[in-house]
Amino acid sequence: MTRPDGRRTDEMRPIQIIKDFTMHAEGSVLISCGNTKVICNATVEEKVPPFLKDTGLGWVTAEYSMLPRATNTRSPRDISKLKLNGRSAEIQRLIGRALRAVVDREALGERQIVVDCDVIQADGGTRCASITGGYVALWIACKKLVDSGVIEKMPLTDTVSAVSAGIFEDEAVLDLNYAEDSHAIVDCNLIMTGSGEFVEIQGTGEGRPFSKDELTQLLALGSTGNAVLCAAQRAAMED
Amino acid sequence: MTRPDGRRTDEMRPIQIIKDFTMHAEGSVLISCGNTKVICNATVEEKVPPFLKDTGLGWVTAEYSMLPRATNTRSPRDISKLKLNGRSAEIQRLIGRALRAVVDREALGERQIVVDCDVIQADGGTRCASITGGYVALWIACKKLVDSGVIEKMPLTDTVSAVSAGIFEDEAVLDLNYAEDSHAIVDCNLIMTGSGEFVEIQGTGEGRPFSKDELTQLLALGSTGNAVLCAAQRAAMED
Amino acid sequence: MTRPDGRRTDEMRPIQIIKDFTMHAEGSVLISCGNTKVICNATVEEKVPPFLKDTGLGWVTAEYSMLPRATNTRSPRDISKLKLNGRSAEIQRLIGRALRAVVDREALGERQIVVDCDVIQADGGTRCASITGGYVALWIACKKLVDSGVIEKMPLTDTVSAVSAGIFEDEAVLDLNYAEDSHAIVDCNLIMTGSGEFVEIQGTGEGRPFSKDELTQLLALGSTGNAVLCAAQRAAMED
Amino acid sequence: MTRPDGRRTDEMRPIQIIKDFTMHAEGSVLISCGNTKVICNATVEEKVPPFLKDTGLGWVTAEYSMLPRATNTRSPRDISKLKLNGRSAEIQRLIGRALRAVVDREALGERQIVVDCDVIQADGGTRCASITGGYVALWIACKKLVDSGVIEKMPLTDTVSAVSAGIFEDEAVLDLNYAEDSHAIVDCNLIMTGSGEFVEIQGTGEGRPFSKDELTQLLALGSTGNAVLCAAQRAAMED
Amino acid sequence: MTRPDGRRTDEMRPIQIIKDFTMHAEGSVLISCGNTKVICNATVEEKVPPFLKDTGLGWVTAEYSMLPRATNTRSPRDISKLKLNGRSAEIQRLIGRALRAVVDREALGERQIVVDCDVIQADGGTRCASITGGYVALWIACKKLVDSGVIEKMPLTDTVSAVSAGIFEDEAVLDLNYAEDSHAIVDCNLIMTGSGEFVEIQGTGEGRPFSKDELTQLLALGSTGNAVLCAAQRAAMED
Amino acid sequence: MTRPDGRRTDEMRPIQIIKDFTMHAEGSVLISCGNTKVICNATVEEKVPPFLKDTGLGWVTAEYSMLPRATNTRSPRDISKLKLNGRSAEIQRLIGRALRAVVDREALGERQIVVDCDVIQADGGTRCASITGGYVALWIACKKLVDSGVIEKMPLTDTVSAVSAGIFEDEAVLDLNYAEDSHAIVDCNLIMTGSGEFVEIQGTGEGRPFSKDELTQLLALGSTGNAVLCAAQRAAMED
Repeated sequence: MTRPDGRRTDEMRPIQIIKDFTMHAEGSVLISCGNTKVICNATVEEKVPPFLKDTGLGWVTAEYSMLPRATNTRSPRDISKLKLNGRSAEIQRLIGRALRAVVDREALGERQIVVDCDVIQADGGTRCASITGGYVALWIACKKLVDSGVIEKMPLTDTVSAVSAGIFEDEAVLDLNYAEDSHAIVDCNLIMTGSGEFVEIQGTGEGRPFSKDELTQLLALGSTGNAVLCAAQRAAMED
Repeated sequence: MTRPDGRRTDEMRPIQIIKDFTMHAEGSVLISCGNTKVICNATVEEKVPPFLKDTGLGWVTAEYSMLPRATNTRSPRDISKLKLNGRSAEIQRLIGRALRAVVDREALGERQIVVDCDVIQADGGTRCASITGGYVALWIACKKLVDSGVIEKMPLTDTVSAVSAGIFEDEAVLDLNYAEDSHAIVDCNLIMTGSGEFVEIQGTGEGRPFSKDELTQLLALGSTGNAVLCAAQRAAMED
Repeated sequence: MTRPDGRRTDEMRPIQIIKDFTMHAEGSVLISCGNTKVICNATVEEKVPPFLKDTGLGWVTAEYSMLPRATNTRSPRDISKLKLNGRSAEIQRLIGRALRAVVDREALGERQIVVDCDVIQADGGTRCASITGGYVALWIACKKLVDSGVIEKMPLTDTVSAVSAGIFEDEAVLDLNYAEDSHAIVDCNLIMTGSGEFVEIQGTGEGRPFSKDELTQLLALGSTGNAVLCAAQRAAMED
Repeated sequence: MTRPDGRRTDEMRPIQIIKDFTMHAEGSVLISCGNTKVICNATVEEKVPPFLKDTGLGWVTAEYSMLPRATNTRSPRDISKLKLNGRSAEIQRLIGRALRAVVDREALGERQIVVDCDVIQADGGTRCASITGGYVALWIACKKLVDSGVIEKMPLTDTVSAVSAGIFEDEAVLDLNYAEDSHAIVDCNLIMTGSGEFVEIQGTGEGRPFSKDELTQLLALGSTGNAVLCAAQRAAMED
Repeated sequence: MTRPDGRRTDEMRPIQIIKDFTMHAEGSVLISCGNTKVICNATVEEKVPPFLKDTGLGWVTAEYSMLPRATNTRSPRDISKLKLNGRSAEIQRLIGRALRAVVDREALGERQIVVDCDVIQADGGTRCASITGGYVALWIACKKLVDSGVIEKMPLTDTVSAVSAGIFEDEAVLDLNYAEDSHAIVDCNLIMTGSGEFVEIQGTGEGRPFSKDELTQLLALGSTGNAVLCAAQRAAMED
Repeated sequence: MTRPDGRRTDEMRPIQIIKDFTMHAEGSVLISCGNTKVICNATVEEKVPPFLKDTGLGWVTAEYSMLPRATNTRSPRDISKLKLNGRSAEIQRLIGRALRAVVDREALGERQIVVDCDVIQADGGTRCASITGGYVALWIACKKLVDSGVIEKMPLTDTVSAVSAGIFEDEAVLDLNYAEDSHAIVDCNLIMTGSGEFVEIQGTGEGRPFSKDELTQLLALGSTGNAVLCAAQRAAMED
């Protein structure tokens, strides 16, 4: 089998993380994973959701959206249908959980960071790119809080990144682009910390159920991919 | 460790599947998994979503909702906020994917079956109960289509069921009730076919990331649990 | 004339009131009037609507909804249309008024009781069943407030129940089921106290206007029916 | 007892019906009942709701709304809350049922007449004024259909009007204004045909339940009031 | 060229301003500009939008709507589509800006005046009539605040009115009615103070771009028209 | 007076137009006017709004939105409030009118082009940048239609661009950035064709009314600015 874009089965697409992409957000990143491009903006707000009032704990949440023409055919904006797209609702909950998994909410203190992930160009893997880029935006925002003395220490316990792995034409492949994703038989999103543990695993048999052996292969690919992403995040943060 | 309700770590709660619970739906089931109770009603509609028009293929979709007082405190109805609850949106997409995984959409023909899962009492595991009970409701509806000659053969390729497994007080346990679920460090929903393959895996580190070993334990518990559920489904269907 | 289900013109359908049907609500009842089944859950909330703030007076309100497949054909959920169904809006206002008519709002104190009426199976008379069952759920919730010493005396001044009466095939009949209701020429909902006075009367000429004589007949049937319902309520409460 | 505005207990407020109040509607009326003023505009549309397609039957429906400052304090517009006011929903269903009761839907043919009732000034009895004025607007629109040869005969079988009667300070009074309505113990809306039969009766014990005798008194007052309204309608139509 | 209704190119339609048109609003006006009729009701509220809290400054805002049958064909109400009409949104922002331009927000004090403009009959120029009539309603409400001693001096620094001018059949004309407006090549709304300065200019080439010379002609017509409107406002206020 | 960023009163900010910024849209542009950055994506759809069905005429429309953190403080997304922002509604109507002014709708044929303008960074003048950049995106999309033989000739009759001019600290200045815009006394948006005629003028006295002389100065500045913008558009299109 040859992959549509000629990559090896365990090869990631080129990753680019541009810091300070927009000027107003406390943390801003443009992440590209191949042709998938997502603007991740982190906003620090001095308030928390009602259920955290007076607990001393902070919160991190995410919102996810695509520009209408991020995809091959134009999708109407949510507001024109008065409904948050079901897929977007599912994805933004996933991003929020993934980021919170590496947040020390006591160290963050009673404030909220909202990470907006806006896909400007989609070619598969937008939720994974949002998590990987969103983490760096979150890190920049936290660093500003530390540097300006608002909080004492970085409230992040590890890095977090995400990559997809799937069964495409009966072979396990890493980091599927849209051409692969839309024909994958099994699709798995693997969210991992920099230290190699799992934060969330979502594996779905799109075309048929899958076996434990197949899952094991996909987990291995995911570890490979997340190691590459973690290195890219560290390079960007140290830059 | 003793579990709050005294079960062994690999012990399921009592399962009850009452067929023909309501009289209008083509397939109707009340499923109880311990104190969790869900009404699953399958409706056959002689139409398909626009993207399937004239393809000869059918569709199965699901809706999920809780009665306002299915939980310990009353939740306002979605309509009073004009927004589908984000958690419900995520869950009903999961139920739909799970059921479609065992549907032969060509054998179903160009019609749609909607499976409504309405939780009347919640005590953890409502999405899993919805899938397990929803499958039986779907099966009843399909059987009526076959028995009445509308379609030639059962359009279901296998059974599908779902169970949760998680790390509670540092031990892997099966089929978490609410008391356990709300304090679980890791939570995994395992959706499997009757023949023991995976349809979907969703594992989340709620309190901390988790290791591959822990995942392996949870997968094993899930296999145990789904075997029990599959037997309960078969008993109900043969009844 | 023979009624579709063979009842006498002044005969009620079998009534069943199951207390404590769900476990979380302060008051919970499943009421069956023939094939019509409604879950009535009463929730006590330690807050009142803004217009009652600091008045010392309590409030009782109701919400009414049908499961999508409570009826012969599936109705989409309100949230999918972003609109509360007009019929539901009208009915839940009626239920709230009916229950408040027997509430001593000073004795209840500054708190609110919400009575959720969710129809799981409909065969005519769902609004009447909601009032009759909702009263019992409200009574259970109030009793808990008294028993636990939150309030001093029962804040209910009487019982309240409701029944329909109508002109079907030119004869006045009591407690119409769906087959009768959908062809009734005149339809009347009669809400009465246990002591036999009227709380609300809604009489509508569906097929043609009606005379004062006809109204008198319907009122008499309503008295008969509500006496039966009141006895069923008392039996359930004393049980 | 003296009524707040000095009327006898069975005295109506002054009624004024101005025809052709606006220029675009097929039927347009400004009705004043005392200080209550409602613009009633009837629109003929050459289409019917889906459930009447190809039945040859017509439809009449109504919408009801108040200008934000029709009342003593400003009410926000429905659109600012994205919800149709519950009271408006209930009232416009009532107006529609009342008007349809005197419509020969076969004679109307497969078309729809929408009667918009917009309250520009409210002083009690707005739903009754809407029905009484709405009927005249509907009549004008129907007459144009006959005069222009679109339909053969008037599709109205009788007139219909509505008036309130209630128990105010323990006395039965006719046509309550806001000062009376807001303190009435029992409130009854009586919708009757020109030939004196009932189309709809809605009686509510606002402050306490009521007896059959009281109902009888209110029905008598309603007959008196509707006779006056019917005469006013006929005068306007013959003008 | 003869204008459809025979007016000279610089001739306004007849203007009528009826004060105290409805009885509840603090300021109420019915303005007619030819066949265009708008009810303008000003409501004084002892609260301000959040961004003005504790600033000592007041606010004036406007809402604009048309009755469904103000126009030749019936428009559905905003609430039936759950969306504020885009044109209405644009117009009510314009009315609010126009009125605020002559408000001394310090003299008004920390309170808000809402000016509701409800078009009951439309024949072109409804936004201009809303501004012209809305100003008088605002003036009446302010006067009551001064007369009752709530504020010390009139918080209005000048009058404001609005008129349209446009190029119709290649000639510049003043105060276009619907027949002209719907075929105008260039359409300009000119909002001016009583002292002849501009508050807002909106000129649009509907059929083709326009030149500076044409703009100059339209500005001159606008000055003529607004002088007439200002005189009508003063006459109404002094009456 | 010195402008906040040191520009001369008639000096534009640096303009950059990047073509083919995203890969899926038929026409895609990133326009920067100083720190204001807008993605303009043109989508060709083979359908028209209902009112143009079977007329042979095409349509061009626009949508405008800001990313939540395009501004200094985060704005919630429209969907979270279920309302299209009033300012966005006004602006997207303006962009649509501006673009249509240079479209030969007969030459375009019965199809629609939607121009999405998404502001990723805001520093004043976002509506003007949207029009200027949106025109180039529209031009690219039209050119593809011609090059691929779908239509015979370019359906654009001229270029169109927009710039703001205003009175800031009592001096007329061109192309206001946010620091100027938020304190401008008079603000004018001037939309002009490449041949120097007006398409739309919107001038507003934010702080005080303005005179004809001031308007004349602003119009002159607008001509200067639009000439610069037109040159930048032509350079991008010829590139």
